[in-house]
Amino acid sequence: MKKLLLNCDLGESYGLYQLGNDKAIIPLVDAVNIACGFHAGDPHVMNQTVLLAKEHDVQIGAHPGFADLQGFGRREMKLSPEEVYDLIIYQVGALKGFTDANDVRLEHVKPHGALYNQACKNKDLAIAIAQAVYDLDPSLTLVGLSGSALIKAGKAKGLKVANEVFADRTYQDDGSLTSRTQPNAVIHDTDKMLKQLETIIHNGTIRTISGIVRHIEADTVCVHGDNDEALQLIQAIRQLAEK
Amino acid sequence: MKKLLLNCDLGESYGLYQLGNDKAIIPLVDAVNIACGFHAGDPHVMNQTVLLAKEHDVQIGAHPGFADLQGFGRREMKLSPEEVYDLIIYQVGALKGFTDANDVRLEHVKPHGALYNQACKNKDLAIAIAQAVYDLDPSLTLVGLSGSALIKAGKAKGLKVANEVFADRTYQDDGSLTSRTQPNAVIHDTDKMLKQLETIIHNGTIRTISGIVRHIEADTVCVHGDNDEALQLIQAIRQLAEK
Amino acid sequence: MKKLLLNCDLGESYGLYQLGNDKAIIPLVDAVNIACGFHAGDPHVMNQTVLLAKEHDVQIGAHPGFADLQGFGRREMKLSPEEVYDLIIYQVGALKGFTDANDVRLEHVKPHGALYNQACKNKDLAIAIAQAVYDLDPSLTLVGLSGSALIKAGKAKGLKVANEVFADRTYQDDGSLTSRTQPNAVIHDTDKMLKQLETIIHNGTIRTISGIVRHIEADTVCVHGDNDEALQLIQAIRQLAEK
Amino acid sequence: MKKLLLNCDLGESYGLYQLGNDKAIIPLVDAVNIACGFHAGDPHVMNQTVLLAKEHDVQIGAHPGFADLQGFGRREMKLSPEEVYDLIIYQVGALKGFTDANDVRLEHVKPHGALYNQACKNKDLAIAIAQAVYDLDPSLTLVGLSGSALIKAGKAKGLKVANEVFADRTYQDDGSLTSRTQPNAVIHDTDKMLKQLETIIHNGTIRTISGIVRHIEADTVCVHGDNDEALQLIQAIRQLAEK
Repeated sequence: MKKLLLNCDLGESYGLYQLGNDKAIIPLVDAVNIACGFHAGDPHVMNQTVLLAKEHDVQIGAHPGFADLQGFGRREMKLSPEEVYDLIIYQVGALKGFTDANDVRLEHVKPHGALYNQACKNKDLAIAIAQAVYDLDPSLTLVGLSGSALIKAGKAKGLKVANEVFADRTYQDDGSLTSRTQPNAVIHDTDKMLKQLETIIHNGTIRTISGIVRHIEADTVCVHGDNDEALQLIQAIRQLAEK
Repeated sequence: MKKLLLNCDLGESYGLYQLGNDKAIIPLVDAVNIACGFHAGDPHVMNQTVLLAKEHDVQIGAHPGFADLQGFGRREMKLSPEEVYDLIIYQVGALKGFTDANDVRLEHVKPHGALYNQACKNKDLAIAIAQAVYDLDPSLTLVGLSGSALIKAGKAKGLKVANEVFADRTYQDDGSLTSRTQPNAVIHDTDKMLKQLETIIHNGTIRTISGIVRHIEADTVCVHGDNDEALQLIQAIRQLAEK
Repeated sequence: MKKLLLNCDLGESYGLYQLGNDKAIIPLVDAVNIACGFHAGDPHVMNQTVLLAKEHDVQIGAHPGFADLQGFGRREMKLSPEEVYDLIIYQVGALKGFTDANDVRLEHVKPHGALYNQACKNKDLAIAIAQAVYDLDPSLTLVGLSGSALIKAGKAKGLKVANEVFADRTYQDDGSLTSRTQPNAVIHDTDKMLKQLETIIHNGTIRTISGIVRHIEADTVCVHGDNDEALQLIQAIRQLAEK
Repeated sequence: MKKLLLNCDLGESYGLYQLGNDKAIIPLVDAVNIACGFHAGDPHVMNQTVLLAKEHDVQIGAHPGFADLQGFGRREMKLSPEEVYDLIIYQVGALKGFTDANDVRLEHVKPHGALYNQACKNKDLAIAIAQAVYDLDPSLTLVGLSGSALIKAGKAKGLKVANEVFADRTYQDDGSLTSRTQPNAVIHDTDKMLKQLETIIHNGTIRTISGIVRHIEADTVCVHGDNDEALQLIQAIRQLAEK
């Protein structure tokens, strides 16, 4: 059975500001998405995070976001497709600088936060991102919400894509994630998370918020390592994903 | 006789803010140094400037500077060599994203403003920059003030280097430029500029501010295109450089 | 007859970047809206612009915007009302620092660009801005699109308000401006501009894009001084406004 | 006997990034210096910190620094006195926006990090800061290193000043702090810290690094609350200061 890769957002510290649990989580995951300086990360953090990923031999990806450090790239911004294209080239190029300098390969690109959410719904932004990734290096993999506009744009462009699924988020009938502004957006119960992920892996389906069962592609699952409990959950997800 | 290349700083606009005369000057020069978003330039400007350089078939270089848009990278900042290393990788990587995306080669790196001045005097910063350029791509050329610590560090690292000379600046006895804080730092008389450049090209010497004649290497001369007069001066410099 | 004040956005330069025609336009207007460093303006520009306004004895207002220098505050951002409240206090406070330091009064606040547009439609943002202005100094005047949510929020809070009208923009049936994304958003014909303004002043009405005539309050008209033609237009508007 | 005030830097978080132990330390101190958004702090953090200070009825001061979030304002920058003047007005004005909005008084200004260090030695910067504080509000108190150029400039301008002393830093023979680049800059032994502070309070003297005893004015002592041990030290300093 195809292995489901565990991916995690890393390198989100900035200057004196420490964020995340990078050293504890990196041995538990297959791929990391490294912030590129616009919503988090600074050049020093980026270099150190690439070195950490190299040491642990995990797949390295770029995690570009909106230029909004105060909002951590989570606030919607209305950019033109051309602006998004340029922003992707800039940030992925910057991270590629660090992978080149450290003789490791940059493998994938996963947009961050509001940019991810907007590009998974907005076809024009999705096409701009796919084009940017393709122009930069057509061998890169584009990571996006399973079945989203971003995945479709990547495929149409001829890129390798990775359908991302979530254990801890609920799904709408159209396959999109329930917005975090809704009370039931996040699954807090560990058993329910693992159950949802098991169904995705073994049945290739998800039960949406209204009870509909729909097909879902799954190449990679997003995990977080905010505390000890989260790290234990990753261990459980890892067992599921490798079965 | 070896051709003296004309280089010019380009892509210094930012958002709505227009700066420079890029389209008028680019047909007159051999190489351009493109701002990388920290002291000037934004991702859109960078992309457009790479495209402009490609169209005119000039050598493309990165022009990284301090993260100080308000001061245009001209205000001294005290960074550690490691911070400078990371800053160079980030900015050159970002510009290389745009050259890769547009299928043109990035040829050289020339630090900007206060970073240039500091690195031409401070050996540790010079070594950090040379190391960053080498780690990113050892085939890149490092551009620095003729005979400076930056040139020495580049050579020691095994990089190609380009000794930069100035027609419009006076020189100190140690081969450094007279600081802009001094009244006699800048040569305003066009004939004197051309005379200084001619001596550099034909004799390989410069007459310093105290009247001493010293040897100077010259691979490239920095030109500016702020107005019509400046563009005419470039034409004259071009004739000198190609003789 | 009540005088219609001419207001203009000023102080939009940043560092080395020059924008606008401040010295030519300031003798022609009654009130200026000074950028506060987030979308344009820097501390030096702000101080110089306050001094210029003091010299010409015009009303000084703060012109706060989104923290988006690259987009000049014209790109929509989705901020919470609380975030907008804090952003207004910060920027208006900063400008008030310069008016206090120069012994002149800060008279009004007019949000800029996307923040203006969003606050004129979104009641929650409008209330947040009115509250911020009131908390900072209840004697300040709040400037907003005539009849908009921002004006209503200002009145509800007990603030003085100034209904802003435009000579060069077309109006929708609900009294909002036609979005700049529409082809007919901007009026380019000078005669039509002056005719629209004359009708506003003398009849208190506007003819909307669909031909409906609706009542419109007018306390102040926004003018621009981008070039000589624009400066002549301001002269004509001035004559109309003072009749 | 005159009370020695305990002051502490607060409000240094930024967006999602948490820094410091504000709620634990504020009941233990007399005065707080609140970051103003350039080296740390954002408008939301500033507002919350002013509210926290109001709740605990401590003296509120502005803590302006260089525009260098990545370097936390600790990296030297070479700004002109005029640039420093404008930067002080902007940041102190912004914080005063929040104190005005919350109906509390802004009492003092203490420059941060590299700006503090540079202004305590450089007379021109010191004069620029004193002038800015005076122009903004002549009733503000200027806080600086005891006996430094900043204190002298404040006195010369007619401002109230507060001479700041440190329990955990060693002093040079000229009364300046030993630079953090020196190995013996920081005192790590709690008994030595308290002994140094006791001598300052009771004898009005400091023993410098070379053993010389020199007079020192002391109005306020800077404390930190990074961990439980630090909080206990503050308790001990408090007892000393109130004796």
